Amino acid sequence: MAISVETFFLDPNAQGTLQSKIQQMIAQGILSGRFSKGEKLPSSRRLARHLGVSRITVTLAYTELLANDYLEARDRSGYYVSENAPEPPQFAPQPPGQDMVDWSRAIGRRFTGGATPEKPQNWSSYRYPFIYGQVDASLFDHANWRLCALQALGQKDFQALTTDYYDQDDPKLIEFIARHTLPRRGILAQPDEILITMGAQNALWLTAQVLLTQRRMAVAEDPCYPALRDILTQTRCHLTAVSVDGDGLPPEALPDHADVIFTTPSHQCPTNATMPLTRRKALLKKARDMDALIVEDDYEFEISFLGAPSPALKSLDTDGRVIYVGSFSKSIFPGLRLGYLVGSKQFIREARALRASVLRHPPGHIQRTASYFLSLGHYDSLIRRMGQVFARRRAVMEEALAASGLSVAGRGVFGGSSIWMRAPEGVDMQLAAAKLRDRGVLIEPGAAFFHRDDPPRNFYRLAYSSISSDRIAAGVELIANTLKECE
Amino acid sequence: MAISVETFFLDPNAQGTLQSKIQQMIAQGILSGRFSKGEKLPSSRRLARHLGVSRITVTLAYTELLANDYLEARDRSGYYVSENAPEPPQFAPQPPGQDMVDWSRAIGRRFTGGATPEKPQNWSSYRYPFIYGQVDASLFDHANWRLCALQALGQKDFQALTTDYYDQDDPKLIEFIARHTLPRRGILAQPDEILITMGAQNALWLTAQVLLTQRRMAVAEDPCYPALRDILTQTRCHLTAVSVDGDGLPPEALPDHADVIFTTPSHQCPTNATMPLTRRKALLKKARDMDALIVEDDYEFEISFLGAPSPALKSLDTDGRVIYVGSFSKSIFPGLRLGYLVGSKQFIREARALRASVLRHPPGHIQRTASYFLSLGHYDSLIRRMGQVFARRRAVMEEALAASGLSVAGRGVFGGSSIWMRAPEGVDMQLAAAKLRDRGVLIEPGAAFFHRDDPPRNFYRLAYSSISSDRIAAGVELIANTLKECE
Repeated sequence: MAISVETFFLDPNAQGTLQSKIQQMIAQGILSGRFSKGEKLPSSRRLARHLGVSRITVTLAYTELLANDYLEARDRSGYYVSENAPEPPQFAPQPPGQDMVDWSRAIGRRFTGGATPEKPQNWSSYRYPFIYGQVDASLFDHANWRLCALQALGQKDFQALTTDYYDQDDPKLIEFIARHTLPRRGILAQPDEILITMGAQNALWLTAQVLLTQRRMAVAEDPCYPALRDILTQTRCHLTAVSVDGDGLPPEALPDHADVIFTTPSHQCPTNATMPLTRRKALLKKARDMDALIVEDDYEFEISFLGAPSPALKSLDTDGRVIYVGSFSKSIFPGLRLGYLVGSKQFIREARALRASVLRHPPGHIQRTASYFLSLGHYDSLIRRMGQVFARRRAVMEEALAASGLSVAGRGVFGGSSIWMRAPEGVDMQLAAAKLRDRGVLIEPGAAFFHRDDPPRNFYRLAYSSISSDRIAAGVELIANTLKECE
Repeated sequence: MAISVETFFLDPNAQGTLQSKIQQMIAQGILSGRFSKGEKLPSSRRLARHLGVSRITVTLAYTELLANDYLEARDRSGYYVSENAPEPPQFAPQPPGQDMVDWSRAIGRRFTGGATPEKPQNWSSYRYPFIYGQVDASLFDHANWRLCALQALGQKDFQALTTDYYDQDDPKLIEFIARHTLPRRGILAQPDEILITMGAQNALWLTAQVLLTQRRMAVAEDPCYPALRDILTQTRCHLTAVSVDGDGLPPEALPDHADVIFTTPSHQCPTNATMPLTRRKALLKKARDMDALIVEDDYEFEISFLGAPSPALKSLDTDGRVIYVGSFSKSIFPGLRLGYLVGSKQFIREARALRASVLRHPPGHIQRTASYFLSLGHYDSLIRRMGQVFARRRAVMEEALAASGLSVAGRGVFGGSSIWMRAPEGVDMQLAAAKLRDRGVLIEPGAAFFHRDDPPRNFYRLAYSSISSDRIAAGVELIANTLKECE
């Protein structure tokens, strides 16, 4: 590869002659590892013109570098970085200068240090990945996704691919969600009541920004999705955590006043509880009485291989009080980053304006690819196939858990992709998880899901969405053995 | 297409017998336009099982709907929405219930009503689109983009496509930016000093959130990119607008104290001024003296067909004081939504945590596709081709402008994609733009770029990035004639 002439700039602060500045610039590029052995340098004529210096100056610099073995000349074809050039250091080169900024002062708001746990990027190299929320390569319909992406890359969809939509979305995707996805959850919505988001995470974040201020009161479930807690904490609103029971969020335990209630009625995260119809009605009534809004995160409703999912809470909402969050991340793949918000026009309008300010719109190509994948029926087949496999895995898992003596704390009645587990009191699952990791087993410790400063440490989540059936029993046995050591 | 059984839910609040509820549910689906003529209904057995009612109830409901011509039966194959079914209304159906929420109270923060002007989605149907920031289909390297996307869709890149990166980015894209893109701007950066963003918009937004609070003072250029002003206004920081001159932002006009200075030194937006080296050094010195940070939006540096671009301000920064914003939106296409932030580790860490909370990460597939497009050299060819064409268009434009007697207020010395124009005092370019639109000419009125409550109304921007050379002269003539009418 040739080194582009545009890579070269003379450092206006450098000392010395023009020639020595040029030598320095090239040697530094080699030493820092930016220019690799065998790469071709620009001709002296081009470099001279680019830098605005005389050609002889560049030629002299090249000759000097040749003598020092930084460069080598090849007949008629010019100068190359020498095979004998000094090796760049193994450590990364330091940029010139020192950081003179007092960042502890300069940073006005901090966003690090949240509750969201770090997860291993290399999870697929573990033998027993009971990891949640990743895609199983053996189940994903790669061929058809590829075909849909190809179609969306075609000349006909050129506009959809390349255009700046400003604050708008792909009308095809919106139409599919309105006509096919939402009706399955019992929801009727107009296009201007739907906003495409960068996954459910982004939908929850936008909602929190629009609805919450330092004077507002939010209610979250305890335990709940840790990233939601981070989002709520960052808004600096008042936050009340309400403990869930086997039927999800109990309306009678809500505080007397709240502005926004965040809930996962169909499939509580992480306990998997499903809220019964009577409780849903009571929750809606309570919200109406205190004039609160409800944000319903309807994650994983598609993964319902054990029975039809109950309709969304939003389908019972005649007041426009429920804001609905859906996602394609669990069911297609998380790297897709596509979800949606459904709510009253007034709310969606503000969320849309905020989204435009933050990022304009999710990339058009991704939206169009998803809309093909959905409308051609590949999505439904994928969900069916996932359901069949998850059902088998879940059966194997239930059997293995029963045999192992491990305690289940919550299982989804419709399906889902994980089981919420309880270790004996006194076992710290953070420590157990570290031990298990060394043994090739990935599990998710549960403490991060709780709001309390001193959360119970003996809960954990086991997902079956990315582990094959034939490894489940051995993995569960390893967990059981490790927990015994930790007691 | 068959109507999925999962679309059906009995309304728990509905009155009447089970059979009438089922009839209502189906009729409503047809009337609202959700079920189309010729679509097949689930078998009575499937629907009965799904709803948990007896099969005879469903059969009776179907028979009744048959009699009313909502449905038709086809021999042995089941029930279909009748070709004679009532037409759904032309207007969109209203969801049941009334919005009972007082949204003026419920919305805690408003994001609508910003300065960012609305732009026509159908710009490409105008004959003279002097529109800024859209892609010219005749220039874009669609074939190679498609090949790169295909490669990124391959089995080998499956992980890159589907994985939840949490807060991380595609290492290949980061490496390319660090090794090839930034050195061309004279910048050396480590991977942990670079963050991929959803376009420059997202980079500016993240930066403003991390650095600004209600107690901080930001400086913006006047005029400036309207979306930046919206971002700064939303942070509620103190904001000082400093008028630019023919050399960009004058350091001596800065206030005595500021925390963050937002600037476009290489190519002022929208006046196209380039800041000379002496002024850059003075700006850095002034920032150091008041211990302020500088955010450099280096947009369009690639579009430099008239001469080499000056190195980035960041390349002169030895203090770590400059935060650099780059983007691929202008040079690849805006629908891509890919940009990047370069800055000190401490800053990038906070911006990364915020990005993770807001949206996790830009989709992996898009990052990987871009990294192929860049590393295979297609990007450089595209830029060269754009440069050649833009140079021709610009020459035609200059000639047409000279002939028309229109006044140029600012042109980029290196190139760029637009010319900043001044109409005679007293001409309101908002009104002129509306007239021109009716005549097939799209221009951008300039008032939105200014900070003042009573901005000058006689500026406008003419871009040559999406209009073909042979239409420029006629378009410019139309503008000149229309301005005469407006005087």
